[in-house]
Amino acid sequence: MSKIVLAYSGGLDTSVAVAWLKEKFGAEVITVTVDVGQKEDFKEIEERAYKAGASKHYLIDAKEEFVNKYIKPAIIANALYEEVYPLGTALARPLIGEKVIEVARKEGADAVAHGATSKGNDQVRFEAAFKALAPEIKIIAPIRMWGMNRKEEYEFAKKKGIPISAESKKYSIDENLWSRSIEGGELEDPWQEPPEEAFEWTVPPEKAPEEPAYLTITFEKGVPVALNGKRMELIEIIDTLNKLAGQHGYGRVDHMENRVVGLKSREVYEAPAALTIINSKKDLEKLVLNKREYRIKRMLDSYWADLVYDGLWFDPIRVALDNMLSELSENVNGDVKVKLYKGSLRVVGRRSPNAIYDKAISSYESEWFPSDEMARGFIDAWLMDSVVSFRKRYLK
Amino acid sequence: MSKIVLAYSGGLDTSVAVAWLKEKFGAEVITVTVDVGQKEDFKEIEERAYKAGASKHYLIDAKEEFVNKYIKPAIIANALYEEVYPLGTALARPLIGEKVIEVARKEGADAVAHGATSKGNDQVRFEAAFKALAPEIKIIAPIRMWGMNRKEEYEFAKKKGIPISAESKKYSIDENLWSRSIEGGELEDPWQEPPEEAFEWTVPPEKAPEEPAYLTITFEKGVPVALNGKRMELIEIIDTLNKLAGQHGYGRVDHMENRVVGLKSREVYEAPAALTIINSKKDLEKLVLNKREYRIKRMLDSYWADLVYDGLWFDPIRVALDNMLSELSENVNGDVKVKLYKGSLRVVGRRSPNAIYDKAISSYESEWFPSDEMARGFIDAWLMDSVVSFRKRYLK
Amino acid sequence: MSKIVLAYSGGLDTSVAVAWLKEKFGAEVITVTVDVGQKEDFKEIEERAYKAGASKHYLIDAKEEFVNKYIKPAIIANALYEEVYPLGTALARPLIGEKVIEVARKEGADAVAHGATSKGNDQVRFEAAFKALAPEIKIIAPIRMWGMNRKEEYEFAKKKGIPISAESKKYSIDENLWSRSIEGGELEDPWQEPPEEAFEWTVPPEKAPEEPAYLTITFEKGVPVALNGKRMELIEIIDTLNKLAGQHGYGRVDHMENRVVGLKSREVYEAPAALTIINSKKDLEKLVLNKREYRIKRMLDSYWADLVYDGLWFDPIRVALDNMLSELSENVNGDVKVKLYKGSLRVVGRRSPNAIYDKAISSYESEWFPSDEMARGFIDAWLMDSVVSFRKRYLK
Amino acid sequence: MSKIVLAYSGGLDTSVAVAWLKEKFGAEVITVTVDVGQKEDFKEIEERAYKAGASKHYLIDAKEEFVNKYIKPAIIANALYEEVYPLGTALARPLIGEKVIEVARKEGADAVAHGATSKGNDQVRFEAAFKALAPEIKIIAPIRMWGMNRKEEYEFAKKKGIPISAESKKYSIDENLWSRSIEGGELEDPWQEPPEEAFEWTVPPEKAPEEPAYLTITFEKGVPVALNGKRMELIEIIDTLNKLAGQHGYGRVDHMENRVVGLKSREVYEAPAALTIINSKKDLEKLVLNKREYRIKRMLDSYWADLVYDGLWFDPIRVALDNMLSELSENVNGDVKVKLYKGSLRVVGRRSPNAIYDKAISSYESEWFPSDEMARGFIDAWLMDSVVSFRKRYLK
Repeated sequence: MSKIVLAYSGGLDTSVAVAWLKEKFGAEVITVTVDVGQKEDFKEIEERAYKAGASKHYLIDAKEEFVNKYIKPAIIANALYEEVYPLGTALARPLIGEKVIEVARKEGADAVAHGATSKGNDQVRFEAAFKALAPEIKIIAPIRMWGMNRKEEYEFAKKKGIPISAESKKYSIDENLWSRSIEGGELEDPWQEPPEEAFEWTVPPEKAPEEPAYLTITFEKGVPVALNGKRMELIEIIDTLNKLAGQHGYGRVDHMENRVVGLKSREVYEAPAALTIINSKKDLEKLVLNKREYRIKRMLDSYWADLVYDGLWFDPIRVALDNMLSELSENVNGDVKVKLYKGSLRVVGRRSPNAIYDKAISSYESEWFPSDEMARGFIDAWLMDSVVSFRKRYLK
Repeated sequence: MSKIVLAYSGGLDTSVAVAWLKEKFGAEVITVTVDVGQKEDFKEIEERAYKAGASKHYLIDAKEEFVNKYIKPAIIANALYEEVYPLGTALARPLIGEKVIEVARKEGADAVAHGATSKGNDQVRFEAAFKALAPEIKIIAPIRMWGMNRKEEYEFAKKKGIPISAESKKYSIDENLWSRSIEGGELEDPWQEPPEEAFEWTVPPEKAPEEPAYLTITFEKGVPVALNGKRMELIEIIDTLNKLAGQHGYGRVDHMENRVVGLKSREVYEAPAALTIINSKKDLEKLVLNKREYRIKRMLDSYWADLVYDGLWFDPIRVALDNMLSELSENVNGDVKVKLYKGSLRVVGRRSPNAIYDKAISSYESEWFPSDEMARGFIDAWLMDSVVSFRKRYLK
Repeated sequence: MSKIVLAYSGGLDTSVAVAWLKEKFGAEVITVTVDVGQKEDFKEIEERAYKAGASKHYLIDAKEEFVNKYIKPAIIANALYEEVYPLGTALARPLIGEKVIEVARKEGADAVAHGATSKGNDQVRFEAAFKALAPEIKIIAPIRMWGMNRKEEYEFAKKKGIPISAESKKYSIDENLWSRSIEGGELEDPWQEPPEEAFEWTVPPEKAPEEPAYLTITFEKGVPVALNGKRMELIEIIDTLNKLAGQHGYGRVDHMENRVVGLKSREVYEAPAALTIINSKKDLEKLVLNKREYRIKRMLDSYWADLVYDGLWFDPIRVALDNMLSELSENVNGDVKVKLYKGSLRVVGRRSPNAIYDKAISSYESEWFPSDEMARGFIDAWLMDSVVSFRKRYLK
Repeated sequence: MSKIVLAYSGGLDTSVAVAWLKEKFGAEVITVTVDVGQKEDFKEIEERAYKAGASKHYLIDAKEEFVNKYIKPAIIANALYEEVYPLGTALARPLIGEKVIEVARKEGADAVAHGATSKGNDQVRFEAAFKALAPEIKIIAPIRMWGMNRKEEYEFAKKKGIPISAESKKYSIDENLWSRSIEGGELEDPWQEPPEEAFEWTVPPEKAPEEPAYLTITFEKGVPVALNGKRMELIEIIDTLNKLAGQHGYGRVDHMENRVVGLKSREVYEAPAALTIINSKKDLEKLVLNKREYRIKRMLDSYWADLVYDGLWFDPIRVALDNMLSELSENVNGDVKVKLYKGSLRVVGRRSPNAIYDKAISSYESEWFPSDEMARGFIDAWLMDSVVSFRKRYLK
């Protein structure tokens, strides 16, 4: 092994990993930090990488790519794992993996490394990218290999002169444009309410403004394109909604989650923009999709979320589903009016040039009504199979 | 036709139906009002029935039966049609149908009648009960037959001396223990926010108490049995939660809905208890069901809701699903802690003697970790099929 | 009503319909016979139309269109309703409907008519085409209206000078390139074995050649393009296989079927080419699709068949599914070797440039094996959720 | 390690495993052979076990248990993995695992062992049983550990005095009452037709009798109870059908299969009884289940097969599915008439006291027909959603 490219977050684990990889493999270690919207001081991260022994550091701004290649299909798929988690981390991992491989190719590295543990989902997601894109490059997972516990890790860091942030972190955090995930500490007790200090993007509902906020979100082909009539880039819409909905205390998720490795874990998330966008769009879809489109889309939406959560971003079926779901979103155009108030979001109106709903047909006050005989015709045929089998089974 | 038994709500339509049936068929009309928890003056309803020409009136208190035979399985199935509507009306119709048939049998009637129109779901639900339980009894749907518009109906009522309530009703309402549905009027415009006057069970979130309410709901086999540690009958739990959650502004639903007859309609609901119970239980299920049980249950839950919404209560598959879902609920025991605040409900804790979650296994601070090689073994096998097909398709 | 365009098969029902429509509506009746591969004397059909009173007759050769727009997507979807019926009639009806509308438009007709009864699927399929494509044109279904029984129909025909074929037909037959369906007569008793006289396309297996036939079918993107290495048009492949497989006694289906109108019926079919093609391709798909693609495709395949059977060809979801299934068929390239022998077809070999199968990986004699520890890593994670929940429920 | 209980087939691998385990762990090795219907000389197997160094040998006749606890639910679930494989081996493994644990408990062993490799499904199935039933007992997989290739294994066997059967086995075989699986050798080339020598239970169709065999199978609650009217135990029915259908050349399966470990493999099977029973019953179900029961059952059937194939017999969801599928089989009573002839099976008749089919309703010659207006009522409502969305999207 002569050159190893490491996905570098700047935290303790990956910093220790730099030094450990150098020592263990006698290799040059190149660090790659991918900016997917996490609120970090990237200058400081770079310095930390060099202090830990990196021979070279890359900072790659992948925010646009994250939004266009990962978040957009997630929006189209209404991606909520197990009905609640918008998949922020699960979406960023394949992208980070891709960038690490790009650097590895450019640098002629013979191995790539990541800082995930042997209990989590992220190891699967990183390695899926590595394996799919560069089967010839070796994969190293230092945290799974070194066998140090937290205390030993601190000592190793001290010995190697790696700066440790003063405040011992209470939670394990992962953050990007689409969601902030919080785990560990007292959150591991599912009965314990998450304390306010766990949250950063959302205010406590009790401290949200007294006035509700009304907001109109405009969608084109299933993707938001404007807020209150003002067209914006998707990244700007996400930023704006993360702030706005977060200020109204909306966007918290508290979840008992099935991991891909066979474990359950308690996960807490903040995702104001993601939840605002997806919940609005799901409502709009009810106006423009017919009954069968709606049911098929919900089923495939849910399959998509499972797939991406489970580290299968690179499975060809994901690409096929993206295309199917995009096609089913061709008519998801229109406006959704939402009301944000003290921790809740309610959709209060929706309209679309592609609405299937037709007041003239549906209204009880309209002229058109099927005749009694027609109604009987429908009911007869609709129920016949049920009724015949019910009688056969249960009457006498 | 000599005797017709009519499902009688006491409203204008069914009152006119009494007189119309008498005149049209020269038959005796017996009215049946089934108490499924609607807030009505049943004395007044009885009087109205007689004034309209009924020869006999039945008031049947079916609240207990409604709770035990209809609401309980709906809770077990987390029944939310198209993810949002708890099916109050859809659940009550088969029961009302059953009671009407019981009276018809007792009275030796040769026909039964209902007040549903030819555009709605309820005609299907009523007639399913009639057809399944009493194939030999004729079904009459006066509203579908008479061809009167609202104005002509008023005139007919006046001519027949049927009392018309002074206030012309703005909305069409249906109410029972499990939900209150509101449709018609300006609600038929999906872009229009439902006005406050549409709601009765829930206060506007802005007027809800400043203090959040914490509440612990205890479930046994998927059914709530206690609130804040106090055991109660299910009916009492429902009553309490309708009031409590309603006071906190929680329980409103605004929905573009696919009816069984091929139409979309805009429906507004209030269902504080139903939504509190179902959303709490769905969270608890995530603690006690394994991944496969969870996914199968969600799929069957959703099928159950479609079935019941679509008027197929009497289909033998519903009975089979009830049993399956009950079995999957054997371990759904434990407490859920929820926080109600100004229109929102958040689950903030859950615990169960049957939890599958095991902190000792899942914690990143625990002793147990799979080795690096074991992790690689899982990842290899988990991804092999995806990665091999990805490479085959997309890498050169 | 001045001009009615009738979908005309040339049989008794539609011949009587010509005269009945003329008499009933005082309208000009234009007949349209669509050639979708049925073995008929179209000259004779034309003569019969004029004898019955048609003012004009159209014979439209739609075989190419049938193959390319209808059969091809059915092949891609492996379309077998309830696992067995290749949907010949269900596929032809929307096309015939479309042609009738084209003629109606050209002729400026104000109504279209079809010869289906009120108990079958075909009325739904015809009218779906009419309603979707020409909402402004009136639909007439004479057989559902006239109230004649078979005997009265014969008398009406005689009175109107409509020629009746001497042999009273034992069965009701519908035939096209893709399948021949046989119903009625003693077949209505599901316990009764279909007699040999019911079959025309297939020899009794007992009379098939003593020598098995080996055949190689080549597929490109899920569609057959060659037989035994010889490239042919799809229509020629279908013709050849109908003959070849039929001669070997292969292609009979005997089916208790759920109709869209709530009835069960016993249907018998012959479809040698359809079954040969679909069963071969399903085998090939197992070589080239990965596990997830396979499962999703089977689920959507089956949904597609239900949809088309149920008369929903024009539902936008069908178009979306066609595209999804086509995309999933991009890699369905290769050869399938089948053996036809005395009523049976067995796939005995398959190969593909896009195979996912890799002997070097799968062979028990290959070099590559996961280590014991890797195997344990997979098994642990794969089973953990199951085993933990099993123990929790059933041990102690 | 002082005592190891080994699942012992009597083949080379498990014989070498006896000696290897003794040497490696210095432990006493107890062999357990479970009779699940494989045609073997169990006396000889016992001798081989002792020669290889076993301290004790158990032969457990589990045929009845195999039939009643494993095959019966598989019949009820119509279990065919990926539509074709009746799961013989997958069903026997959990049972063998259970028996090994019983012996281990009785003998106070501290470990159990199996002879499966790291590439196959069986390791997962064995270890699922071990882990679910006896979490405290250690699991050893000698074949995954020893790192010998075939040649080294032979040498080790010779050195240890383990008898090697003269004929080097061409294929890897696993056999029990429900199926015989054949893999390896030239079968690893999917294009290669399986040679006749691979088959033992089925004659080549060309050599099957000239006369077809007609057979009536009687089912009660989804389980066969009689052949040609003669009641028999299920095990006897299976034996009889394996012989009878096998003699007619029926029961061969040739399959590209997705293994649980991420590989595809080519598998060949013989399963005359399994395929006869399941294909007959699937036909009967179409007579007695209504449309929804049929669709739900097929979906759950297929899920059940995946589950059991994937080694998840002990997942609680399997138990829940068994109960659901049993309930859906309550009415699967009646007779199926099949015709076996030169490699093919055709169902030619079915009848049931619980049939939903009603000739009087379905017949085109019956009195009952919906009126034209009723038919239009059904068609309107059935198609409205499709037609409205089709027009909205594609017209104008």
